[in-house]
Amino acid sequence: MRSHFDEELTGLFRDLAAMCGQVERAVVRATAALLEGDAVIAEEVISGDTAIDRTREEIEEAAFLLLSLQQPVAGDLRTVVAALRMVSELERMGDLSVHVAKIARLRVPERAVPDDVRPVVERMAQVAIDMVAGAGGIILSRDVAAAAALAKADEEMDGLRRTSFADMLAADWPHGVEAAVDLALLGRYYERIADHAVSVANRVVFVVTGASPYSLSE
Amino acid sequence: MRSHFDEELTGLFRDLAAMCGQVERAVVRATAALLEGDAVIAEEVISGDTAIDRTREEIEEAAFLLLSLQQPVAGDLRTVVAALRMVSELERMGDLSVHVAKIARLRVPERAVPDDVRPVVERMAQVAIDMVAGAGGIILSRDVAAAAALAKADEEMDGLRRTSFADMLAADWPHGVEAAVDLALLGRYYERIADHAVSVANRVVFVVTGASPYSLSE
Repeated sequence: MRSHFDEELTGLFRDLAAMCGQVERAVVRATAALLEGDAVIAEEVISGDTAIDRTREEIEEAAFLLLSLQQPVAGDLRTVVAALRMVSELERMGDLSVHVAKIARLRVPERAVPDDVRPVVERMAQVAIDMVAGAGGIILSRDVAAAAALAKADEEMDGLRRTSFADMLAADWPHGVEAAVDLALLGRYYERIADHAVSVANRVVFVVTGASPYSLSE
Repeated sequence: MRSHFDEELTGLFRDLAAMCGQVERAVVRATAALLEGDAVIAEEVISGDTAIDRTREEIEEAAFLLLSLQQPVAGDLRTVVAALRMVSELERMGDLSVHVAKIARLRVPERAVPDDVRPVVERMAQVAIDMVAGAGGIILSRDVAAAAALAKADEEMDGLRRTSFADMLAADWPHGVEAAVDLALLGRYYERIADHAVSVANRVVFVVTGASPYSLSE
């Protein structure tokens, strides 16, 4: 029975890592739609979110079955509940990609991001994408040290957000209110994607070490 | 054993409703800090969030104990897992109140919200507060019809957000970039608080009827 449970749990975490890959592609594609002002890609991200939602439902059902049929206790119980939380976070990260894609779509045929702001947005997106990929790797490897590194990467995101606020609130901001509002919301979306990636990684740490994720940066 | 489980479950939902009350007060106070430009109240909301986090941990521990010791299956299992999700949502609503309070604090001694925009922000805040209060009531009453009404109230929030965007993106917006960015982010925070309230209510529906929350507005 025990080894069957372990197998099921391994399968659950493999599915979570695959879902993390789905989310990573959504962030990559949403960012491409944003930076290129590409309505087709934006639509694909928006309609593609149902596939992420479906994966969420499948993983949730698998976790429920595991709880119902195997009745895990102690650490095993916490692991399955952690998986249920991780799946919610991943689904939210998919939603946030949709928000990015919607800003892209709203501004087509223009681009939401003015050329001189592009580097900071590109960097925010790249940090978020790397963190999502990192979280996926940590789900598979259960590498506690890598989770700490991920929390560190989140600091760069905070810095980028501060930079973008300083840019748009400077007296010589040339792009008007609409571009500033877009940039503020985009920064918020990428920041939240990064936050969720850290949170997913922290839940893996919790599963491995039993340490409360609250003591880590959450 | 069964009636003991039911008692514990009732206690869990009572604690969730009480936590919802904590969150409601946080949204009320954050809004007061925002509209009055009051740094003292803003600080209280920001530091007071640790109390909400502590409540979250207590409820989570109680739910884990219930899962470990009582080993519920089927509907009972789903109810406890739903409670675990509701507690996460409530905690996020607390965080969002902190974000509102931080915008208030950032602009002291000024007010973040210009006078002529105040009505729409006040209304967004009131809708959010009413929805949080509604969610708390639904947790206790398990009133499925009230949950549907809550989803309806969320439509007013969407309309208010559209209005605020139309205001700030109008050619004659007189308040500059900073006020627009604040307003966009505030709108996002209140909208998310409202979304979470709907989601909490939907989880109650799920507990009562067994209907998947995915088929409802989420």
